[in-house]
Amino acid sequence: MALKGEPKSTLYVGIDGGGSKCRAIVYSTTHGVLGDGLSGPANPFQDFELAIKSITEASMQAAIKVGFNYSDLGDMTAGIALAGVNIPSVFNAMQHWKSPFKQHLVLTDLHAACLGAHSGGDGAVIIAGTGSCGYASVNGQSLTIGAHGFPHGDKGSGAWIGLQAVEHCLLAMDQLGQDSILRQKIAADNPLDLVSKVSGQPPRFYARLAPLVFEAAEEGDVIAQNILQEAGDYLSQVGEKLLSLNPPKLTLIGGITARILPYLTSKVRNKITDAEHPPEIGAILYAQNKINADTQNRKTNDHSASG
Amino acid sequence: MALKGEPKSTLYVGIDGGGSKCRAIVYSTTHGVLGDGLSGPANPFQDFELAIKSITEASMQAAIKVGFNYSDLGDMTAGIALAGVNIPSVFNAMQHWKSPFKQHLVLTDLHAACLGAHSGGDGAVIIAGTGSCGYASVNGQSLTIGAHGFPHGDKGSGAWIGLQAVEHCLLAMDQLGQDSILRQKIAADNPLDLVSKVSGQPPRFYARLAPLVFEAAEEGDVIAQNILQEAGDYLSQVGEKLLSLNPPKLTLIGGITARILPYLTSKVRNKITDAEHPPEIGAILYAQNKINADTQNRKTNDHSASG
Repeated sequence: MALKGEPKSTLYVGIDGGGSKCRAIVYSTTHGVLGDGLSGPANPFQDFELAIKSITEASMQAAIKVGFNYSDLGDMTAGIALAGVNIPSVFNAMQHWKSPFKQHLVLTDLHAACLGAHSGGDGAVIIAGTGSCGYASVNGQSLTIGAHGFPHGDKGSGAWIGLQAVEHCLLAMDQLGQDSILRQKIAADNPLDLVSKVSGQPPRFYARLAPLVFEAAEEGDVIAQNILQEAGDYLSQVGEKLLSLNPPKLTLIGGITARILPYLTSKVRNKITDAEHPPEIGAILYAQNKINADTQNRKTNDHSASG
Repeated sequence: MALKGEPKSTLYVGIDGGGSKCRAIVYSTTHGVLGDGLSGPANPFQDFELAIKSITEASMQAAIKVGFNYSDLGDMTAGIALAGVNIPSVFNAMQHWKSPFKQHLVLTDLHAACLGAHSGGDGAVIIAGTGSCGYASVNGQSLTIGAHGFPHGDKGSGAWIGLQAVEHCLLAMDQLGQDSILRQKIAADNPLDLVSKVSGQPPRFYARLAPLVFEAAEEGDVIAQNILQEAGDYLSQVGEKLLSLNPPKLTLIGGITARILPYLTSKVRNKITDAEHPPEIGAILYAQNKINADTQNRKTNDHSASG
């Protein structure tokens, strides 16, 4: 296979992992993306062992797709973007992981999303997927809003929308709230069945209910429309706060992007541009910059030492 | 010890278990409550093994306090009231548990609370503790409202109040909501610290924050007052629904009873009377009635057979 002749120094692995899934790409600075992989949850704050398993699995898939094997990962540098590494102890544990890569650099999923969306330049992102948050990086300053997790945070996210819907259904089934198209889509008549189904479920379970809320809203259900409007209002608030830093670009990314867009205020909606690259590329841009900066520092230090 | 001479047939164990704790009493039909015990969580839907451990531990404590030992439980009949046994499969598993008792009869914590509160007679209860719900038993008919669990249900409960407070704090710390006395009581300035503290916590953790919400409300915090008013409005809705069955009595029980009472509508508040007995006694009344009814049935059947 021709690609096996690729100089090893030009190969990178880009990882984007969160509470639902982990994506990996193998990337060559001369040929671009060579292969990709997809595995399970990779939020090391929620489950460290599962996160490293998912990262390894997705990376292996991507490597195998282009004819590499496990030991070839040892020649590649990885940029690993993850939810949960905003907690300093989790970041340190992940940075000190004995990974299968030549070296790896860890950053938050938000930072990688922002770098990817704006090709490494300044900008801001609103993330609306299983979870929700905002992130901006402008003139060397960064701002994070939200990213607090479920059920206490992540307002406006797919999981939050799903939880609101379930709460509504249970009230309706107890005849303490209005019945609705939404209730018919989410649950049969017996609250016990719904309770058995939802109890103890993770955010990604609730996020999978969000499409039913969008459907109900499109069919005219006022309760579903209100839930989505509250989500849109919150995400707009996040957007306005990010715009106050004057980022050159604002991008909305995540699983509910297309369907939640109409619920944002026009002020925020009109500023939104498409992401240029996915977070996996953002993670690689970060790793490249970090290594270049370190090399530059070493050269400067060597120069100073010899000067 | 005199009590050891008690005829074994007159001894009962009454259990009341839920997501936070498990209470047990040893009760004699001639001398009343002899001893009590308290252990950890006993919701067999959440954790079956932990529930039977807690039930056994609390019963042992109660037995030992009056000079009995483990094997003496084998002479006693137990009424076991538990959260979670409204799910039929959980009820069956608990009913078939090889318990240390001579025999045991399982009922929901709500049913036992209602029987205890009204000395075995008809009535209704609103429960506002770690969780929330309503239950009525009138003329052989019963009605359950809520009891759906956390975070999707249990509106108006201690856990729900705590969760609302945390959600508010995170919005305030992101400067997307008003700062407040409540925020100062719940969290320091760093949202990451609060997120680390609350992530993945069970309902009882959130319920332990509820007293801070009551404190903040008493100090004039409008956000805390609004949270509590929404809780009170929901519990009042539950109360009105129960009153529509014309129960002879309505009782409010659970950990936040005294402090939430002022937030109920006067219509519901004015109907509320004190509980006559705790749920453990309700569980024993249930066991006694069930055994008497079975004995009666057997006699009738024997009579029919010989007639």
